[in-house]
Amino acid sequence: MVSAIARPETRTAADARTTTRFALVLEYDGTAYCGYQLQAGRPTVQGEVEKALKALTGEAVRISAASRTDAGVHARGQVVSFRTSGTLPVEAYVHGLNHLLPCDIAVREAHPVATDFNPRRMATSREYTYSILNSPARSPLTARFAHRIAPLLDARAMDRAAQILVGVHDFASFASEIGGELEKSTLRNVSRANVSRNGAMVTLTIEANAFLRHQVRNTAGALVQVGAGRITARDLERLMELRQPGLAGPALPPCGLCLERVTYPASFEEMR
Amino acid sequence: MVSAIARPETRTAADARTTTRFALVLEYDGTAYCGYQLQAGRPTVQGEVEKALKALTGEAVRISAASRTDAGVHARGQVVSFRTSGTLPVEAYVHGLNHLLPCDIAVREAHPVATDFNPRRMATSREYTYSILNSPARSPLTARFAHRIAPLLDARAMDRAAQILVGVHDFASFASEIGGELEKSTLRNVSRANVSRNGAMVTLTIEANAFLRHQVRNTAGALVQVGAGRITARDLERLMELRQPGLAGPALPPCGLCLERVTYPASFEEMR
Repeated sequence: MVSAIARPETRTAADARTTTRFALVLEYDGTAYCGYQLQAGRPTVQGEVEKALKALTGEAVRISAASRTDAGVHARGQVVSFRTSGTLPVEAYVHGLNHLLPCDIAVREAHPVATDFNPRRMATSREYTYSILNSPARSPLTARFAHRIAPLLDARAMDRAAQILVGVHDFASFASEIGGELEKSTLRNVSRANVSRNGAMVTLTIEANAFLRHQVRNTAGALVQVGAGRITARDLERLMELRQPGLAGPALPPCGLCLERVTYPASFEEMR
Repeated sequence: MVSAIARPETRTAADARTTTRFALVLEYDGTAYCGYQLQAGRPTVQGEVEKALKALTGEAVRISAASRTDAGVHARGQVVSFRTSGTLPVEAYVHGLNHLLPCDIAVREAHPVATDFNPRRMATSREYTYSILNSPARSPLTARFAHRIAPLLDARAMDRAAQILVGVHDFASFASEIGGELEKSTLRNVSRANVSRNGAMVTLTIEANAFLRHQVRNTAGALVQVGAGRITARDLERLMELRQPGLAGPALPPCGLCLERVTYPASFEEMR
């Protein structure tokens, strides 16, 4: 008979009383990954972090995330969580994982949290940015993290139109139907939506309790229609009122999207 | 007998009266390249641009540059020049080359210039930035274009010390001797040197008529010694006065360095 201790793969079933739960804040360049979520035989952020955790702790650790970012999408403040029966100090998760992870994924912070901490369900808001390089010329120094649009965009008109989105609305028109599967409720609470210009860079910053699939990329696409003078803010409002998936857009490519921050009801320290 | 016209490789010897000279402003992410300068069998910026020009014009075109950036160094405003007997309009060099070049090299501008235009000799100044991410944590979103230093740097002290460098000085102490080969004169005129902090990003901006080999990276390294409190501004001044190659530094890695701009006595239009 093989003892459970000799088989680290089975340790995840260990008694909750002897395990600790940690939350990690991750930053990643999503360019090389087929998204956050684990897919067999393909590079994913979850796959890389779980592999590094296994090397560090000897346990087959399953992590859960605040947001399942799509292929090519970046993050500055993704939050993931896992349980471990290991006794490493919290700093070891920052330094150890940063040595083990590939250079395009990093752990910014690690915190011990309550054993029932759930990074997705307990999050009160997510903040994303969508970066647009508004330039007729290709730009290798920004191409990795910004989508380029050549015609001049009116960022102020985009910002004014974005205010229509603030509040509790049915955002069905901003969702993409993926394989016919649409979220049950399409009501979301957008607490902030701003578009600002810094030189050639036009940035949408949007915060909500949660987002529908492709909502930020569709929102950025619809605001570009406003910025290019193809539709008005009133048109955008009407699209929202029609509540039909796929109406507002088109979705801009993933490279410009970045999950900036996930907010919880209290600090990680207070949630222990 | 094969005519010269049927052999594009020989057309570069064409009569100067029938050729046009162009200047290109290039932006590139130098990460994947063994530097600007052509090296047989290795990826270089010059090699890629010459390959694209050959595909566009049918001619074996040799380009010359304002500055031979090292392996891994980036550029937002490198200037190169070449002569061609082709009759393509100037816009074709922007659009045609941008379709042919790899995604990490782009042509920002193309200008017809006088046939004796020399991008290196006629340049009156070069501006470089050196970017330092001053953070204890790895950052995949900035790692490509900034060197990370963990201990807190005093950017104001670095900026004050940088003022010592402004003016005409012998910068021998800031040069790296590469294979014992040192520039004949080590006098340079630094017209501007500033260090500023924006959040965790500490940026050195330095402009001079020309730079010695590794001068900017050695300068950034020496200023980091000041910012970390290991040497004083007065020490930096003494190092400069000693005029010994390799004294000031150490040279910081190439990823943080970017050739921002090359300045000429007049605009490209006025130099026709």
